[in-house]
Amino acid sequence: MMKLPVQASAEGLDVAFVGVPLDTGTSNRPGARFGPRHIRAESAMLRRYNSSTGAAPFHSLRVADIGDVHVNLYNLPDSCRLIRDSYRDIVASGCVPLTLGGDHTITYPILQALAAKHGPLGLVHVDAHTDTGDAALGEKIYHGSTFRRCVEEGLLDCGRVVQIGIRGSSYDPDPYEYSREQGFRVVPAEQCWLRSLEPLMREVRAQMGNKPMYISFDIDGLDPAYAPGTGTPEIAGLTPAQALEIIRGCKGLNIVGCDLVEVAPMYDVSGNTALLGANLLFEMLCVLPGVKTL
Amino acid sequence: MMKLPVQASAEGLDVAFVGVPLDTGTSNRPGARFGPRHIRAESAMLRRYNSSTGAAPFHSLRVADIGDVHVNLYNLPDSCRLIRDSYRDIVASGCVPLTLGGDHTITYPILQALAAKHGPLGLVHVDAHTDTGDAALGEKIYHGSTFRRCVEEGLLDCGRVVQIGIRGSSYDPDPYEYSREQGFRVVPAEQCWLRSLEPLMREVRAQMGNKPMYISFDIDGLDPAYAPGTGTPEIAGLTPAQALEIIRGCKGLNIVGCDLVEVAPMYDVSGNTALLGANLLFEMLCVLPGVKTL
Amino acid sequence: MMKLPVQASAEGLDVAFVGVPLDTGTSNRPGARFGPRHIRAESAMLRRYNSSTGAAPFHSLRVADIGDVHVNLYNLPDSCRLIRDSYRDIVASGCVPLTLGGDHTITYPILQALAAKHGPLGLVHVDAHTDTGDAALGEKIYHGSTFRRCVEEGLLDCGRVVQIGIRGSSYDPDPYEYSREQGFRVVPAEQCWLRSLEPLMREVRAQMGNKPMYISFDIDGLDPAYAPGTGTPEIAGLTPAQALEIIRGCKGLNIVGCDLVEVAPMYDVSGNTALLGANLLFEMLCVLPGVKTL
Amino acid sequence: MMKLPVQASAEGLDVAFVGVPLDTGTSNRPGARFGPRHIRAESAMLRRYNSSTGAAPFHSLRVADIGDVHVNLYNLPDSCRLIRDSYRDIVASGCVPLTLGGDHTITYPILQALAAKHGPLGLVHVDAHTDTGDAALGEKIYHGSTFRRCVEEGLLDCGRVVQIGIRGSSYDPDPYEYSREQGFRVVPAEQCWLRSLEPLMREVRAQMGNKPMYISFDIDGLDPAYAPGTGTPEIAGLTPAQALEIIRGCKGLNIVGCDLVEVAPMYDVSGNTALLGANLLFEMLCVLPGVKTL
Amino acid sequence: MMKLPVQASAEGLDVAFVGVPLDTGTSNRPGARFGPRHIRAESAMLRRYNSSTGAAPFHSLRVADIGDVHVNLYNLPDSCRLIRDSYRDIVASGCVPLTLGGDHTITYPILQALAAKHGPLGLVHVDAHTDTGDAALGEKIYHGSTFRRCVEEGLLDCGRVVQIGIRGSSYDPDPYEYSREQGFRVVPAEQCWLRSLEPLMREVRAQMGNKPMYISFDIDGLDPAYAPGTGTPEIAGLTPAQALEIIRGCKGLNIVGCDLVEVAPMYDVSGNTALLGANLLFEMLCVLPGVKTL
Amino acid sequence: MMKLPVQASAEGLDVAFVGVPLDTGTSNRPGARFGPRHIRAESAMLRRYNSSTGAAPFHSLRVADIGDVHVNLYNLPDSCRLIRDSYRDIVASGCVPLTLGGDHTITYPILQALAAKHGPLGLVHVDAHTDTGDAALGEKIYHGSTFRRCVEEGLLDCGRVVQIGIRGSSYDPDPYEYSREQGFRVVPAEQCWLRSLEPLMREVRAQMGNKPMYISFDIDGLDPAYAPGTGTPEIAGLTPAQALEIIRGCKGLNIVGCDLVEVAPMYDVSGNTALLGANLLFEMLCVLPGVKTL
Repeated sequence: MMKLPVQASAEGLDVAFVGVPLDTGTSNRPGARFGPRHIRAESAMLRRYNSSTGAAPFHSLRVADIGDVHVNLYNLPDSCRLIRDSYRDIVASGCVPLTLGGDHTITYPILQALAAKHGPLGLVHVDAHTDTGDAALGEKIYHGSTFRRCVEEGLLDCGRVVQIGIRGSSYDPDPYEYSREQGFRVVPAEQCWLRSLEPLMREVRAQMGNKPMYISFDIDGLDPAYAPGTGTPEIAGLTPAQALEIIRGCKGLNIVGCDLVEVAPMYDVSGNTALLGANLLFEMLCVLPGVKTL
Repeated sequence: MMKLPVQASAEGLDVAFVGVPLDTGTSNRPGARFGPRHIRAESAMLRRYNSSTGAAPFHSLRVADIGDVHVNLYNLPDSCRLIRDSYRDIVASGCVPLTLGGDHTITYPILQALAAKHGPLGLVHVDAHTDTGDAALGEKIYHGSTFRRCVEEGLLDCGRVVQIGIRGSSYDPDPYEYSREQGFRVVPAEQCWLRSLEPLMREVRAQMGNKPMYISFDIDGLDPAYAPGTGTPEIAGLTPAQALEIIRGCKGLNIVGCDLVEVAPMYDVSGNTALLGANLLFEMLCVLPGVKTL
Repeated sequence: MMKLPVQASAEGLDVAFVGVPLDTGTSNRPGARFGPRHIRAESAMLRRYNSSTGAAPFHSLRVADIGDVHVNLYNLPDSCRLIRDSYRDIVASGCVPLTLGGDHTITYPILQALAAKHGPLGLVHVDAHTDTGDAALGEKIYHGSTFRRCVEEGLLDCGRVVQIGIRGSSYDPDPYEYSREQGFRVVPAEQCWLRSLEPLMREVRAQMGNKPMYISFDIDGLDPAYAPGTGTPEIAGLTPAQALEIIRGCKGLNIVGCDLVEVAPMYDVSGNTALLGANLLFEMLCVLPGVKTL
Repeated sequence: MMKLPVQASAEGLDVAFVGVPLDTGTSNRPGARFGPRHIRAESAMLRRYNSSTGAAPFHSLRVADIGDVHVNLYNLPDSCRLIRDSYRDIVASGCVPLTLGGDHTITYPILQALAAKHGPLGLVHVDAHTDTGDAALGEKIYHGSTFRRCVEEGLLDCGRVVQIGIRGSSYDPDPYEYSREQGFRVVPAEQCWLRSLEPLMREVRAQMGNKPMYISFDIDGLDPAYAPGTGTPEIAGLTPAQALEIIRGCKGLNIVGCDLVEVAPMYDVSGNTALLGANLLFEMLCVLPGVKTL
Repeated sequence: MMKLPVQASAEGLDVAFVGVPLDTGTSNRPGARFGPRHIRAESAMLRRYNSSTGAAPFHSLRVADIGDVHVNLYNLPDSCRLIRDSYRDIVASGCVPLTLGGDHTITYPILQALAAKHGPLGLVHVDAHTDTGDAALGEKIYHGSTFRRCVEEGLLDCGRVVQIGIRGSSYDPDPYEYSREQGFRVVPAEQCWLRSLEPLMREVRAQMGNKPMYISFDIDGLDPAYAPGTGTPEIAGLTPAQALEIIRGCKGLNIVGCDLVEVAPMYDVSGNTALLGANLLFEMLCVLPGVKTL
Repeated sequence: MMKLPVQASAEGLDVAFVGVPLDTGTSNRPGARFGPRHIRAESAMLRRYNSSTGAAPFHSLRVADIGDVHVNLYNLPDSCRLIRDSYRDIVASGCVPLTLGGDHTITYPILQALAAKHGPLGLVHVDAHTDTGDAALGEKIYHGSTFRRCVEEGLLDCGRVVQIGIRGSSYDPDPYEYSREQGFRVVPAEQCWLRSLEPLMREVRAQMGNKPMYISFDIDGLDPAYAPGTGTPEIAGLTPAQALEIIRGCKGLNIVGCDLVEVAPMYDVSGNTALLGANLLFEMLCVLPGVKTL
């Protein structure tokens, strides 16, 4: 990632890029298992400074790419166990993981590991879908039930959860009922159209306070014009500019981890979805606690 | 379409999805004959409720997919005759057709059938082009002359016609002269840039009144970034959000039919143009008279 | 180009479309050598009138396509020499060149030829990058150093240079330092998001006055959603509507030449990047001095 | 499939086309879940007669497409159970299933259902891989262990098993050891290069006798030039002509079922891999017992 | 084509490359209207000498590209009339036309013009299909009936017609009945598999004698692996080497015209189908009467 | 490459995979600079044993991937100097380099380094082109003059040079004249069609003797159906099976280095050209001196 040094563990690092090449939790088009490989390849175009915000992350933090965690492609619950255990090791030494997904299932075991260390977390969740389904095809674990599982296990501080970019048709008459009942703030895409999200992010920062929080960014939160390489695209989504406003708007928060999920690169022969993913991960790095600007 | 039941005729239906796999009226890049097949395939991702508007179309209306009408690929006038005759049967029993095109030529025989039943129609026409040419290569029937033919045959209530998204270079010094002379309202793309179209749609609703009207949506009304899979793309077009504002803005009108035309899927290997088309057809279904919200 | 007559020289022309099929100055993805071929192919969809502005360029000016200049693919400095010499001939008789690139290296020898005739030039430069690097891999000439070379040779009237759409990560803590030191106006993409650029262009017109100026348009100034077919895409860029506002905003200026560079068509199988380039070149033609509107 | 009537069950049929949209047993590139959809779409080009062999399958047999069986995308063993149960119903009434895969995992539960009815089966298995691995990532069920599972459960008549087209690098020094130990005949691709397979098929027919046998055709048995749309391509494979020789060479055998697996259509934007799959399934239909030639 | 001089008419030429951008006779996937444009673009890679045969066509003959003939996209019979009239002019002065198609419909009016001058012609016809259908959708003129129309009008010397590469499923129990009744020689693809076609071509040369003959080459005669960019691909076709054997095998015959049809370039993003077409046209040029070898 | 350990230098290695990401010597379509990246990515599918030949390279030799050498994209002669110097270091310690190209220019400086150590080399050169041009656009160094430069500098033992797969049109009446004059054996593609190359390779082995020799494999030696991802494709080339026969036929020779060049991956969205390249490099590894079979 970003031509960074590669090392085997998170030992001694402030921040680690980690790949999770899993896509068997995908309901529609699989392929996110190749997200880490392609995001890393496209990240070769990134340079060291953020010319827009002045952030100089490599001056401030020890950062490396620690490769991919092992997953079990043929057994989702076992994959979740493997991911959780790997992330426990990563966060044990105080390292902040920046995850290259993989489908959204992976956020569940990552949050298990993070909440075990930090307690219930605030969440900025960008996505076309709330991912609060109960079960699919009789299974409790897949990429559409991630945040319901997290709620059930007490991993989230529900009053500090915001879901941005939600849209699309639904199986239920009231698709946001579950989110609302938990106290989540749901910001539908319609409320974002043609609007700067800086005012929203001011409110979000106030809501998050200085307690630990996590950023989970599903690339399908963006419009398919910008991110065709994903498994469950929904029309009329966010723009990359809004994505940057959201991430940059998290500057100052007590971020303990981030992920960028659902890049399925074979649906975008231009490589631009992976490039977008690489840029968003770089921007997440630039807003981590301790990053100085020049 | 949408995993709906397939049936052979419109008998007993309130609404029918109908495919018209014709593209021999295309001036530039053909391929819209495969629009119905790909729109149906991508519609598999749609679910039953409109989470943004609350519409529950399948609670309110009997809806089915009645397959494709027969066309004569080698004879455009004969294709028009076949389409017109098929639509006469469809609308005879009161069924509202939602058409999956096909190139824009097909709207001409569809409006022949609809106007025969309802009289001259109001029209919300989204497109990059006015499609009011007189003839091309000596022929009167092709996808660029559709609405001139309709005017000549009295199928349109010209004071209730609005054309939205028009742009691009032209063969004539005054490309909107014909439209203006008929009393059409032409809304160029420039008037839509960076703007919500809700105010426009309030005016359109007032203009349409409660008399019968039709929605004809050429996917090239949208910017090619969102809809690359089409035959005559023009830069700097509408956004999907604006498309939703237009369609949702038709709620309450006396809609007697709708079409979504010019999806030429082979120019979009991601499948997203067809997905967009499927979503827009679902949104049209959701604003039909009689659809209740939950 | 635009099905115009092809002729061997600029003799007797007011305006000439010229191709420069060079891409060996590219730092990341090559392929812009095929820009001229694909822009010409897609320009077949353009018609003679600008329906938005009323411009009728072919009524006012003698315009032709004079083909491609010779380049030396294996020797960049020699290519620059060949381009400069060709453009000296083109501009000798008063002809305004509209260039189909090619990578951005080519603007350097073009401006050598133009400044030799007109003196230091004003510049409207649309791009994701300032292209003011000093050297790469030890070489002074490549597509990232173009405007530093131009400054060093006195080809630019630095108080009349504006760079629009700049963004992305950088190698330097202060990436705009050089531009600022020369007196360039740098308009980052962030200042363009969700905004009409008409106010900016009013200021630009005042700044340019009626002295000679040049338009250099790198297609990567636009967001990769609109222009995936380019070598160094950067996320969160301009829209085609803003591109039109910039070019149309140059109407009335003393334009002595224009280029559209960095279309690398193999990264966009839809052909839409080349189509966009063809449209932008047509719009440049429409704002040249002497073009009347009908 | 082939514009055949669609019906809900195999009741009253001699032959049923069945889709199994599962790809979670895939080790490398997923996507075969969309194999059935694309094979059906491309099969629209097939006509009723086999002009090469004279076979007229629809004169001789009652054939329909009975749609897709249900699978559980998030649980491979449960998917296998669902498939096995569905196939038990299909074969109960004497219907021969022609399966559209899906990854090669699905052949295991299909053979469970068929062997339960017919006893241990002969097998003509075309593939780049023997699919006789023991386990992967600790799991016994995935697309590389199919035939070892079948052997262990006694589903195969090992003296009547032939594997054709095998090639590629291997994890084991002796990759064919297991196959040989069971008595399989392994025909490496090297023995097929530049050769008609008619002599081989004469031997295979003799080996199979008139006892029940099955054809399992992995599209990656063919060279990637002909079938790029698959998950684990291996270079230097069979040609379509050889594929036809193999299938046509099975004429006269007591075929009780066939499958065509591992078409992952998103890796072949031309659609030709799916077209190839559709043709091979048609050819299998043409060699079923009872098909007459005209 | 081949960077040859472009001129407006065939006046003074021995050989003319001519484009016929028509595809409205296509039964399945349209797009061959762009065949001429893409074949010309890819022909830029061709050089002046045939290194395999020693032919130096430009030393021996006056050759130019005379552009595209006009067609009427919206009226097939009128297109045929336009093509026939254009070709009458081309052949009037003794020029041999080498045609860049376009779908196979165009060979019908071309042969009308050629037979009017030369009398009934011999024919080497390479194709997956015999194109001797009677009518489709009630129409007599489309790309599947070309050679039946030619027979009916006496344009062919039926004892000197050979059809090579025929294969695929059929609508009729005896698909070659019509061809056989006329006395055509039909060489199915099965007879070509893995075989040099030089022996066949020796027989063909004997059959043709020194009377006028025509080469009509449908690119779908080749296997889709080599020529994916076509409208009605059929598996298990000829190889490019066999195509060269066929064309080179025509050396010495009294060739009065040739065509290369059914290149639909949008189905082959690599450009290789058009490149193949360009090469085959060059090889046809190299076997024309009067071409010397060095 | 092949998930091998990555190390910074060739120190202590028997064999090193080396990438040379240069493509500025390309005459037609650039992009081979991305060859190394994509070949490495696709090599992830390769396993440790060669199941066809029994070779177990990692049991016999110390092998690693030492990354890419530095090149100067903007100066070809300087790139050649950088490559030559890097290879001198690599071969100094006795390590055999297996090179991932890159365009064919790179073989020139590689052979400079190798011949400096081993003296004039024998050569098995697979290619569509002889690459013995003198100059292009006035430049002596580009991908079409490689072997003429090598001859001039005495790097080749001309009586032990064989060029296989040569074909295509040419600029010269006698394109093989130069090769013949040097005593090279030229095997045109025509002599390879439909034939096993094992007899040829027996002769080649005799010709090479046990003196040092090199394998230079241009992927365009293969037919574009198998290797569309390359810059100057020529129709009617070799098959992958023949490529394997050639490489396996070098077993026993005194191979001191190998390269696989001209993979330009953006022209093959399936990734199969890079996969083919990775396999051919693995096969080269398997025939190196000292590799044992199990």
